[in-house]
Amino acid sequence: MSQHPFTRMGGMATPASSRRRPSPPTRDERKSRTRRALLDAALGRLSGDQSFSSLSLREVARDAGVVPAAFYRHFPSMETLGLTLVEESFATLRTLMRDVRAAEVPTSHLIRRSVDTFIQYVLDHQLHFRFIAKERYGGSSTMRTVIRQEIRLFTSELATDLARVPSLAAVGSADLQLLAGLVVQTIISAAELVLDARPDDGVELGRIADETERQLQMILLGGTRWRSDLARQAVDEVL
Amino acid sequence: MSQHPFTRMGGMATPASSRRRPSPPTRDERKSRTRRALLDAALGRLSGDQSFSSLSLREVARDAGVVPAAFYRHFPSMETLGLTLVEESFATLRTLMRDVRAAEVPTSHLIRRSVDTFIQYVLDHQLHFRFIAKERYGGSSTMRTVIRQEIRLFTSELATDLARVPSLAAVGSADLQLLAGLVVQTIISAAELVLDARPDDGVELGRIADETERQLQMILLGGTRWRSDLARQAVDEVL
Repeated sequence: MSQHPFTRMGGMATPASSRRRPSPPTRDERKSRTRRALLDAALGRLSGDQSFSSLSLREVARDAGVVPAAFYRHFPSMETLGLTLVEESFATLRTLMRDVRAAEVPTSHLIRRSVDTFIQYVLDHQLHFRFIAKERYGGSSTMRTVIRQEIRLFTSELATDLARVPSLAAVGSADLQLLAGLVVQTIISAAELVLDARPDDGVELGRIADETERQLQMILLGGTRWRSDLARQAVDEVL
Repeated sequence: MSQHPFTRMGGMATPASSRRRPSPPTRDERKSRTRRALLDAALGRLSGDQSFSSLSLREVARDAGVVPAAFYRHFPSMETLGLTLVEESFATLRTLMRDVRAAEVPTSHLIRRSVDTFIQYVLDHQLHFRFIAKERYGGSSTMRTVIRQEIRLFTSELATDLARVPSLAAVGSADLQLLAGLVVQTIISAAELVLDARPDDGVELGRIADETERQLQMILLGGTRWRSDLARQAVDEVL
């Protein structure tokens, strides 16, 4: 069992680099900071008991230190703010995972490298992930739909990558989507386990990484035996 | 693609058989009905926007047609009512799935039979499943813990069953738990898709059943290639 040196960022929404203190902020910088403050205010409230539907524009504005009217200079509505949170949760993640897959990593280490990178990403964005986990089946159908779409997009990108793996050549397009779906489900479960763990519990995080890696290997091994052209899969003979 | 004749029960919490009108109810029957009414009242409120943490004893009692003080004759607290809802969601499901696995079904049909049975169960208990989906990552840590435990119990029972499958003999105990975990994850995803579908959309439900069956086959095929005694799995050679 490996202990992984995951660094604890404490789930801060604002990256350290943006907390420098330079010369007095320009108007654009002030606007950008207020926009960020509004997003962080919403994330902060959502990390507890509140759901997005119950969040009021007034309390978010207040937490961000602006009057409600100022909110509208940044977002046309609370719903838009929520959608922005969803998008920013997924956009950087997709880029990150794409970078991992494109890197010069020996294939045998690719799964583990992806798992570790993903777990670190969750640790660095805990507030975002708690928000996503809650809203995935929460009261706002717009949020549920957008989150589902983002996950579907992530899955499709992965399916495209899997299509290039020689040993998965017998897996047709539709089945590649299902295989990718299994992978995405598994890393979503891993994210949930990471959120439940203590961020400084290296042993627990290492265990989650080990088990997630094994589950992904099981899924991909299954893919290598899959024959989309067969009416009945080999599993019937082996059960 | 198969169209499945899933019967739509409309997600009613109270089975039709308990709505008979016999002679005036006994005291025990009245008590039992009130208890049921309180559970259904909570389920009804939770199917919308409310989370369990925001539910008040007062409003649940009112919906059930009793005074708040009467609530305590049935449940010591709202938390106990919530835990009862979780338990009743899972208890009958475990029994049902056990029955499917024990039945005289040709192995080649076992996966599909289990999937169909499970989907029908979700359709018959939609309110319970919406409640579980929402509370799984909701604000009450007690609920989250209990739900997680129930899922773990379900997974362990399945792992025990998988241990009897000859072609999975090379999968060690710990890895059987991971394999079972993948299966449970997949059927949980299926439940979520079922909840999002229209209950009378036979084509969509059939599609969900088809895809879930295929994903379970992929997982089990992976299991048949798994060698727990190897330090490095065969997947490294095939990727």
